[in-house]
Amino acid sequence: MPETNYCMNKYLFIAFILVSCNKIGADNDPLPSWSDGTTKKAIIDFVTQATREGTPPFIPVEDRIAVFDNDGTLWCEQPLYAEMRFSIDVTGINDVVKAFVVSHTAVKPEQFDKMTKAWLDTAINVQFQRRYIDLTYQPMLELLHYLHDNQFKTFIVTGGSAMFVRNFSQHVYGVPAERVIGTMFKADYSDYNLSLEPDLWHNNDNAGKPEAIFNIIGKKPVFAFGNSDGDLEMLQWTSTHTLPNLSLILHHTDDIREVAYDSLSTIGRLKNALIEAKAKNWIVVDMKRDFKQVFPFENQ
Amino acid sequence: MPETNYCMNKYLFIAFILVSCNKIGADNDPLPSWSDGTTKKAIIDFVTQATREGTPPFIPVEDRIAVFDNDGTLWCEQPLYAEMRFSIDVTGINDVVKAFVVSHTAVKPEQFDKMTKAWLDTAINVQFQRRYIDLTYQPMLELLHYLHDNQFKTFIVTGGSAMFVRNFSQHVYGVPAERVIGTMFKADYSDYNLSLEPDLWHNNDNAGKPEAIFNIIGKKPVFAFGNSDGDLEMLQWTSTHTLPNLSLILHHTDDIREVAYDSLSTIGRLKNALIEAKAKNWIVVDMKRDFKQVFPFENQ
Repeated sequence: MPETNYCMNKYLFIAFILVSCNKIGADNDPLPSWSDGTTKKAIIDFVTQATREGTPPFIPVEDRIAVFDNDGTLWCEQPLYAEMRFSIDVTGINDVVKAFVVSHTAVKPEQFDKMTKAWLDTAINVQFQRRYIDLTYQPMLELLHYLHDNQFKTFIVTGGSAMFVRNFSQHVYGVPAERVIGTMFKADYSDYNLSLEPDLWHNNDNAGKPEAIFNIIGKKPVFAFGNSDGDLEMLQWTSTHTLPNLSLILHHTDDIREVAYDSLSTIGRLKNALIEAKAKNWIVVDMKRDFKQVFPFENQ
Repeated sequence: MPETNYCMNKYLFIAFILVSCNKIGADNDPLPSWSDGTTKKAIIDFVTQATREGTPPFIPVEDRIAVFDNDGTLWCEQPLYAEMRFSIDVTGINDVVKAFVVSHTAVKPEQFDKMTKAWLDTAINVQFQRRYIDLTYQPMLELLHYLHDNQFKTFIVTGGSAMFVRNFSQHVYGVPAERVIGTMFKADYSDYNLSLEPDLWHNNDNAGKPEAIFNIIGKKPVFAFGNSDGDLEMLQWTSTHTLPNLSLILHHTDDIREVAYDSLSTIGRLKNALIEAKAKNWIVVDMKRDFKQVFPFENQ
């Protein structure tokens, strides 16, 4: 019997080491909500090769920078960007730009955070009759975690404001505040007090995305995921990396489970980036085909 | 004998768990290059209480943000900031401001990184006859690691350029590129190409430090360490945190092992911040008294 105990203990010990090394479950599907096919295979092949030391497509850990757009890439942006709805809701101002500026800068940052969290807790997307934070894409949540588990640093690079997205990025995506890059207002510190001016410091869309990534992350990404023309420059810049890299676009093709839209939509317009993706052989993720499940609540 | 094996294995198993949890060596001195005294005790007490769950001064992991100035705080800034020497050396221009702008923006970022690494590998600080990267402060390296081991996220918030400091932050301090906030040039992306304009996007000194911390980290720090009047606003802002917090100033008092300077120095001038530190009971680290060892090479 002592011999048996010893053996059991040995296996327990090995199991513990394996768990510590995150190896248990390696044969399980890391992306169960993605349909099997070329898209899913391309993502898994990229990550598998990037993390296999010794072979040429290996990517050193310090270069594993992955950037994700937010609206329309990680969560639903239809029929109106959540942050626009928030801005109108909390100010009662119907001019979206004015509502955006007033809602973000007329109160102290601490108060803004409280307002945002309270709104996110309760506000409902009228089209889907769900809270905004419940309208994230299950396959994208899995992808964020899959990359994280493979020692990629995941960043959100959003056209929305960093201060808005930081109020749910950790809770909803597992991405901490300092890994959120977004549109930013001029901050003004004086006499122990920080407030925001009603002027932008940085508009984090189009060319603003690679520009902010350079200045804030300080490294060119090897993995970029967007869904609209506002992401084109970020995808382009990523594709110039000397290391293996992947640029991906989520194409909203599913009019049953979500909304089918691209070049004619004012929200998340996708035209030039789709043309370029096809010309450059970037990965175009077809929501209808590639997302086995769209929203987390579908399986509940 | 099987019984003995079983026991030994059990202890090995427990030892492995302890190592995994970073608990072995917890009774060892985490700051051996700091002299015993009130300064060292205040730092260790702060960290110990911040990480002890359940008691009031506990700080949740997501709020453990620690910010450090670089020049004069993490490494020697006398007789001239390393980055100024670098700028003059690589351009041959004696006007420091002009040399700074030209050296950082006239070449592509990739080339700038190569130039910086080559310079850091060989350039010698004439006063100390040592390479700049060897003139870091051993007690500060220990403090960075001590905080990291206690799940603080450590950031460098430098008046120098982020793009310069990122070329040695990981290697020298263990702080990755994306945890370096510094002075930044306007980036200009177009046609697959990122270049820098000869204009600042952000001057990361004085009020610029809390302003950038707000926009880039998105959280107020609970721990801030500086050495000059350029750090005053960052120290002030940290001291307004509703959670327990620590603001520290390194006072250069040692004319034997380093350089004694404060209010009359053009490099790292420390006047107003020292007055305020005393009024507010911030911790003033006296290099002569509190640093048992100054530079890493002293013990070699």
